[in-house]
Amino acid sequence: MGALTFQNLDSLIAFKALKEHKEVVSLREDLTPERVREYTVKMGGGLNYNYAAKYVNESLLNILQDVSDEQELIKKYQALLSGEVMNTGENRLVLHQLSRGECFGPVVHKGENIGEFYRIQLHRVADFAGAVQRGKITGSSGKPFTTVVQIGIGGSDLGPRALYLALKNSLNRKPYLEARFISNVDPDDPNDVLEDIDFASSLFILVSKSGTTQETLTNRQFVMEKMKDAGIEDPSKHMIAVTGETSPLAESPEYLDSFYIDDFIGGRYSSTSAVGGAVLSIALGADVFNELLEGAHEADLAALEPDIRKNPSLLDALIGMYERNVLEFSSTAILPYSQALSRFPAHLQQLDMESNGKRVNRVGGALHYSTGPVIFGEPGTNGQHSFYQLLHQGTDIIPLQFIGFQESQSGFDLTTEGSTSQVKLNANLAAQIAAFTKGKNDENRNKVFPGERPSSLIYGQRLTARSMGALLAHFENKVMFQGFIWNVNSFDQEGVQLGKLLTKKILSGETLDSALEVFSGLLKVR
Amino acid sequence: MGALTFQNLDSLIAFKALKEHKEVVSLREDLTPERVREYTVKMGGGLNYNYAAKYVNESLLNILQDVSDEQELIKKYQALLSGEVMNTGENRLVLHQLSRGECFGPVVHKGENIGEFYRIQLHRVADFAGAVQRGKITGSSGKPFTTVVQIGIGGSDLGPRALYLALKNSLNRKPYLEARFISNVDPDDPNDVLEDIDFASSLFILVSKSGTTQETLTNRQFVMEKMKDAGIEDPSKHMIAVTGETSPLAESPEYLDSFYIDDFIGGRYSSTSAVGGAVLSIALGADVFNELLEGAHEADLAALEPDIRKNPSLLDALIGMYERNVLEFSSTAILPYSQALSRFPAHLQQLDMESNGKRVNRVGGALHYSTGPVIFGEPGTNGQHSFYQLLHQGTDIIPLQFIGFQESQSGFDLTTEGSTSQVKLNANLAAQIAAFTKGKNDENRNKVFPGERPSSLIYGQRLTARSMGALLAHFENKVMFQGFIWNVNSFDQEGVQLGKLLTKKILSGETLDSALEVFSGLLKVR
Repeated sequence: MGALTFQNLDSLIAFKALKEHKEVVSLREDLTPERVREYTVKMGGGLNYNYAAKYVNESLLNILQDVSDEQELIKKYQALLSGEVMNTGENRLVLHQLSRGECFGPVVHKGENIGEFYRIQLHRVADFAGAVQRGKITGSSGKPFTTVVQIGIGGSDLGPRALYLALKNSLNRKPYLEARFISNVDPDDPNDVLEDIDFASSLFILVSKSGTTQETLTNRQFVMEKMKDAGIEDPSKHMIAVTGETSPLAESPEYLDSFYIDDFIGGRYSSTSAVGGAVLSIALGADVFNELLEGAHEADLAALEPDIRKNPSLLDALIGMYERNVLEFSSTAILPYSQALSRFPAHLQQLDMESNGKRVNRVGGALHYSTGPVIFGEPGTNGQHSFYQLLHQGTDIIPLQFIGFQESQSGFDLTTEGSTSQVKLNANLAAQIAAFTKGKNDENRNKVFPGERPSSLIYGQRLTARSMGALLAHFENKVMFQGFIWNVNSFDQEGVQLGKLLTKKILSGETLDSALEVFSGLLKVR
Repeated sequence: MGALTFQNLDSLIAFKALKEHKEVVSLREDLTPERVREYTVKMGGGLNYNYAAKYVNESLLNILQDVSDEQELIKKYQALLSGEVMNTGENRLVLHQLSRGECFGPVVHKGENIGEFYRIQLHRVADFAGAVQRGKITGSSGKPFTTVVQIGIGGSDLGPRALYLALKNSLNRKPYLEARFISNVDPDDPNDVLEDIDFASSLFILVSKSGTTQETLTNRQFVMEKMKDAGIEDPSKHMIAVTGETSPLAESPEYLDSFYIDDFIGGRYSSTSAVGGAVLSIALGADVFNELLEGAHEADLAALEPDIRKNPSLLDALIGMYERNVLEFSSTAILPYSQALSRFPAHLQQLDMESNGKRVNRVGGALHYSTGPVIFGEPGTNGQHSFYQLLHQGTDIIPLQFIGFQESQSGFDLTTEGSTSQVKLNANLAAQIAAFTKGKNDENRNKVFPGERPSSLIYGQRLTARSMGALLAHFENKVMFQGFIWNVNSFDQEGVQLGKLLTKKILSGETLDSALEVFSGLLKVR
């Protein structure tokens, strides 16, 4: 592979062309049925990305293609897949895609086949999960496990939690185990989650790559103490660890077993590694988790296509850049019309904002353009009765990412007034896309809808493990491409370090900045 | 009371002065211990609003005071409390503050004492709740109620849900009943909530002011059907209604009882009316709900103070306007360091974005300045491991609203490495305020923190019903003052109507715009 060229977005010839592109699309006028049919691209996992209600036309798409080519987005993705050091700040490979399959051949690093390492860990997880589900592995009193509790924060929490909620009602059977999650160092979090738990039939998963995460280690101790109080004779029989091979947690006698992750998969990208694999395989089944990986792998393969019109995550990334850097929109709303995706926006919030909320480029150079937007969202139709007022009639334009499925997950639905709840849900979704684009005039200016508010729609037949995998990977790949476009390192998170450092200072009794001392006093910290 | 003057923000003399104010505060330099001690104001409910880490100084505060005086913010609040028609578009009084007490004398409208009406309804709720708790009112099989399920959406869901989560672990006893919530028309929502429920011991609360909310009526039918399937003989013995007196739901034989609300309290302001009162009184106790009202009333009284340095919600509103209209920040993050407040940001998202996401003024005139920002947030420390990267090192500055308490709600806490979990939590909070203001230099430019990122801190001893009431009312009053500042009607929501209209069109089989027809097809709606 030839050497890659890394340059800032504003030095691209194609970006100058993009800024000068004057042929404005009117969604109100130009949103024809032909356009809706044509501006759709397959994502893998049975999903489709429809961008008919975005401010794009053929001439703009041509320029976005030029941006993609000039910034070598596909070549950079190939380099990442091949095992080049794309996380330059931390001198690490970036291999989350490899956790679901090889897209571009095997990756051998320091003599080790890394994909093989991931597969082995997931096989070990699957074996362990099966043994728990068959009652071969039980708690210390011999009771089968019925609840699994993940202890982790950030990437060890948001993604796995969102996926569990997304899939727990998607099966034709009940989950094998109920899953719960403890994340916050606030004692009210573990106290609430553990309030009614039966420790004798509960298995805990401690997830921390470094084995040093303050919140997670504190909550581990918290759970240990509670287990002792509950009379559990051997707490080590109730806890497994997902951690790095060199972490202090690895191969500790305090755990029933340990499953390994490495430095090449960042926390927010780790849902398809053992971080998500353990809890999802144990609660839902290893077969379900494997389907998730298959769907994600399909989306990863789709992301290799150099033609932006055939590559949904690349196209999504480029349109997002256009909205951020040319139209100057500052946030994006994620609006899934599926209650099962209730926490998926919170996962995407981390994925996107932690990856691309950066003000210097990958070699520390200052940037003179905006990077990652604010990401927020709630499921429709709930959001309609909450913040959609501002989306329709506020003074800022906020691009919208709708997600919808033809069928519900539930077996039971009810017909009232001639339609099922699922049809009502989707009628709302279709109506919103139309309302946001076409708007409405009215003599009463308070009832005028300006329209011209852009959205895209990801849709499929049903939210399953496979489509969920594709949905997850789509956004991971979109975020990766946007990082390449902006020339930032999407795989580190130096911005979280200072807070950790100051927290340690406070807790260790060091002398503090005098204002911080007063704030600490207000909160009775010291 | 003299006639009020309504004018747009950009026509104020004081606003011009604000735009010309050049004396820039450096948080890095100017955040002294004296400033932290001085820039604090009591909110009621035992809470304090600290704005030391905001871009304000004495000369700026003087101009903000001028804005307040010139725009007659306190006079407008007094007019609202007195029963003037402040929701002009809908020709309605605005009386949510009255639901927790009289701040400015009684309000008599068309011969009726409205405060008396609210009190009577809440007394009826309290009596009903007591009878449920004592087992005097039971399900149709005679089983006592142990679960209460609110069916409602938007304001009938977000506020009551956030408050229930905030308070369920705040008592020295367990809740009387467990509360659950069904909101989304997605059938996956009620199916999930009802999956493991014992209908014989469950009481449902149907909440819809108009009695015509599509989602809520659909979910009512859904629950009715499920009750029949579960063999409940008389479903009417398991459901109460909270609705308007003229709604089709009022005094229906299909309900055990009905409690009334009126048009003078909008959905997003209704948590302290019977909308929140029923579920909170039944689940937690009428005494707990009354404490909430008391705390809210204290904050309402604090909001009457004309001196902005002594009025926390007025000051918060004015600083927010300065950040939005002069500094041009487009969003605000709500960051409670309390897991119990996990859904409070979602409530504030509705409260703020639905109230002030408006592009015309109260008489329909176009506005040439920004109004309501995007509101989002998650509890700390979780957010630290998610989107804080962007807050620290992103290209946009996002004002932060921290919330913290000296004590946890839980009885149980654990000391590890010399500190309790609660102290660790608050050390993180104090550290974040310092990190955001002071920043940090580094030779590696990727590790530089620019600092100068503004925040305010609301703090108190403990999250109780009383402090929760004050917290809730603080934000309601802030939003109200910002509406007055921007000269918008914060009490209607015309922006939600078009979507409803188009949904009906789709479901009734009317001819659609051809693009909408195709979108409907993609989603298998028709």
